[in-house]
Amino acid sequence: MKATRSGLRIDRSRLLSRLDALADVGAIEGGGVSRLALTEADGAGRDLVVSWMRDLGLRVDVDGIGNVVGTWPADRLDPAVMTGSHIDTVATGGRYDGNLGVLAGIEVLESVITAQVRTTHPMAVGFFTNEEGSRFAPDMLGSLVYVGGLPLEVALDTVAIDGAVLGDELAAVGYVGTQPCPARPPRAFVELHIEQGPVLEAEGLDVGVVTGVQGISWQELVLHGQSNHAGTTPIALRRDAGYVAAAATVAVRELTGATPGLVGTVGRFELRPDLVNVVASEATLTVDLRHPDDEVLDDAERAVRARVAELAEAEGVEVTWRRLARFPAAEFDPRVVELIEQVTVDHGLAGRRLPSGAGHDAQILAGVCPAGMIFTPSIGGISHNPAERTHPDHLEAGANVLLDVMLALAERVDLAEADEPELATPESMGGRR
Amino acid sequence: MKATRSGLRIDRSRLLSRLDALADVGAIEGGGVSRLALTEADGAGRDLVVSWMRDLGLRVDVDGIGNVVGTWPADRLDPAVMTGSHIDTVATGGRYDGNLGVLAGIEVLESVITAQVRTTHPMAVGFFTNEEGSRFAPDMLGSLVYVGGLPLEVALDTVAIDGAVLGDELAAVGYVGTQPCPARPPRAFVELHIEQGPVLEAEGLDVGVVTGVQGISWQELVLHGQSNHAGTTPIALRRDAGYVAAAATVAVRELTGATPGLVGTVGRFELRPDLVNVVASEATLTVDLRHPDDEVLDDAERAVRARVAELAEAEGVEVTWRRLARFPAAEFDPRVVELIEQVTVDHGLAGRRLPSGAGHDAQILAGVCPAGMIFTPSIGGISHNPAERTHPDHLEAGANVLLDVMLALAERVDLAEADEPELATPESMGGRR
Repeated sequence: MKATRSGLRIDRSRLLSRLDALADVGAIEGGGVSRLALTEADGAGRDLVVSWMRDLGLRVDVDGIGNVVGTWPADRLDPAVMTGSHIDTVATGGRYDGNLGVLAGIEVLESVITAQVRTTHPMAVGFFTNEEGSRFAPDMLGSLVYVGGLPLEVALDTVAIDGAVLGDELAAVGYVGTQPCPARPPRAFVELHIEQGPVLEAEGLDVGVVTGVQGISWQELVLHGQSNHAGTTPIALRRDAGYVAAAATVAVRELTGATPGLVGTVGRFELRPDLVNVVASEATLTVDLRHPDDEVLDDAERAVRARVAELAEAEGVEVTWRRLARFPAAEFDPRVVELIEQVTVDHGLAGRRLPSGAGHDAQILAGVCPAGMIFTPSIGGISHNPAERTHPDHLEAGANVLLDVMLALAERVDLAEADEPELATPESMGGRR
Repeated sequence: MKATRSGLRIDRSRLLSRLDALADVGAIEGGGVSRLALTEADGAGRDLVVSWMRDLGLRVDVDGIGNVVGTWPADRLDPAVMTGSHIDTVATGGRYDGNLGVLAGIEVLESVITAQVRTTHPMAVGFFTNEEGSRFAPDMLGSLVYVGGLPLEVALDTVAIDGAVLGDELAAVGYVGTQPCPARPPRAFVELHIEQGPVLEAEGLDVGVVTGVQGISWQELVLHGQSNHAGTTPIALRRDAGYVAAAATVAVRELTGATPGLVGTVGRFELRPDLVNVVASEATLTVDLRHPDDEVLDDAERAVRARVAELAEAEGVEVTWRRLARFPAAEFDPRVVELIEQVTVDHGLAGRRLPSGAGHDAQILAGVCPAGMIFTPSIGGISHNPAERTHPDHLEAGANVLLDVMLALAERVDLAEADEPELATPESMGGRR
């Protein structure tokens, strides 16, 4: 590896040992982690991360939804250049998703503090409540409340899949804080995260420069046909909900082939009565469509609906549609994207720009401040799985990119930094989603 | 309706009232019946039907697997012209499937006895144990044991889906009989049954002259791909088991379009992990293929396997196949088919020849004696459902056809019957399946 841009480096072994220590909290078989939001395990994870923040001398602020932000220098109240992610996991999750972004942020701050580097703007690292959405809906709940996208009162009343109320669970783990929601926006926000996909590994790259987050459309179709005997009912007289569901699934795949950048997935598919010798009377399936351009995504939705309507009519099957989710596409600040790309080049790393296929806290923060994301490769593209892994070289490289991006954004004052971009104030950026 | 061929007629109201009385045993909501084989309800249904047989003065024989045969005249031990079906039902079944064939048989015998008609050969009506196969596998178990296709000891050891042992359940309902299995073959066997499909109704016909039973192939495919994030995994890098399963389902439908007479159904379809935003790692589906010609059916099996192999290879998905069932096609005796067709014409009914899509006891009996089947129309093609219905006119017409076919086969001695077919002895027909 070439020298870092700033001459500073994060401490690889310190980062890895913190990742290991946090992964021990709620550890499950296969190297994975189970820390569903605001469970006892999540509370223990929070306590451990906060202890590291306090050890570094950060000022630790907790807000009304349990988001935690550690700031350096501790006495600075003006908007910080912030990094961070989340430490909640899915039920059978991996050790890097979210955790890497938080612990790399702590590592960046420790490196800066240890080197006694001063910056014009304070720096901060945080973790947001319930990013995964596996226990409480919606996902990215904490960051949504942080930016004012969801009222605190509504969020606190959220009922978990296990029947628990979010506010009660937050109190039980001791993370009802006093900082206001929505928060004063940070000066900028940069998140380091594992890719959770196979693109970087497949192309032999070290770093992903994330340009934005794809728009996401989730729809559920229920097809109503008629159950019939599989042996006695001629094909022409069938109203086979299962066949239409299968043809719709194939149509989704065909549409992705005809629309550059579109991904489409039928992940749920259920038949009734689900018997070998009975034509299905009912099929339920979901269509997940994603594209970085919301207009293309809307067109894709319409194309799928039109094709399914054709297929259903030909078979005499009724269709009902239900929208499960529609997250608009988010674009990251071009100056932040440019900076991450430049640092990647400066570090001698191989990288590429790419959109994020998954949702992240950074896309929520992008609504109130200049924001960006750095991806590290995921081995085999595997995530949300105990087998989720990233090579330690890539963990280190990503954290070093984060370090130099943070230093540039925070405007290191002990060196000439002629090529840092002039960032807009949070106020002038506000409202962009 | 024109006069019947023999001048005799069954008693419509007596037939309908017996159908109602038997449907009251194990009645469920919506007019349906639940009498799974050898349950208490099945036992009560058996007792009722046997009481009707005894009231008529039939000799009631029960064999080692619980098949019940009522013969007239009671003292005749030579091979009878036999009719019958089954009285067990699926868990949420209808009132006609099986029951019609048994009760129409009793009605035919009562009509013959009442009219004091004599025949050269005795006549019999029976019901076979566990035709549906909903509680014990295989289906058509009783008739299989009856013809020697399944050893009695093996059948008695069969374990039900609820864990019960067939022999114990048979004893509990009191139907362990003393007649030997396999039985001495009847002189001929004719079964009246509802079509369980929509063809007769769609063509406005009264009677189906069944030419044989389609060959049946049941296969299960398990597709092994890789679960991946629906947002972060480009289409080209996916190994989507769900997509291949859907494309296989479409391929089955396409093959039916290219192969006259072939029906194909994917009735079961399950994905894992079955989540909206996860590419499926595993798909399980079943393929039910049927055709009256076993060679065509074998070709269709091969074509489906080849197409699925192509689809799977293109997607990087592994396939495992499991054969669930393969019943060879059965052809009914052409003289019996001809006789049924002639009686239909004589009665002024509109009929057509057609193969049976479903399996029936008559196909098993066809292995040991001349056999045939008569279908009555099913309203909406609905069967194995409480909504199963046949118009009373059709019930009556079918039973009258059965009456005259039975009289012809049994060789009525009080009338000149010049055009009756000469039937082979059971021995010369033995072994044909």
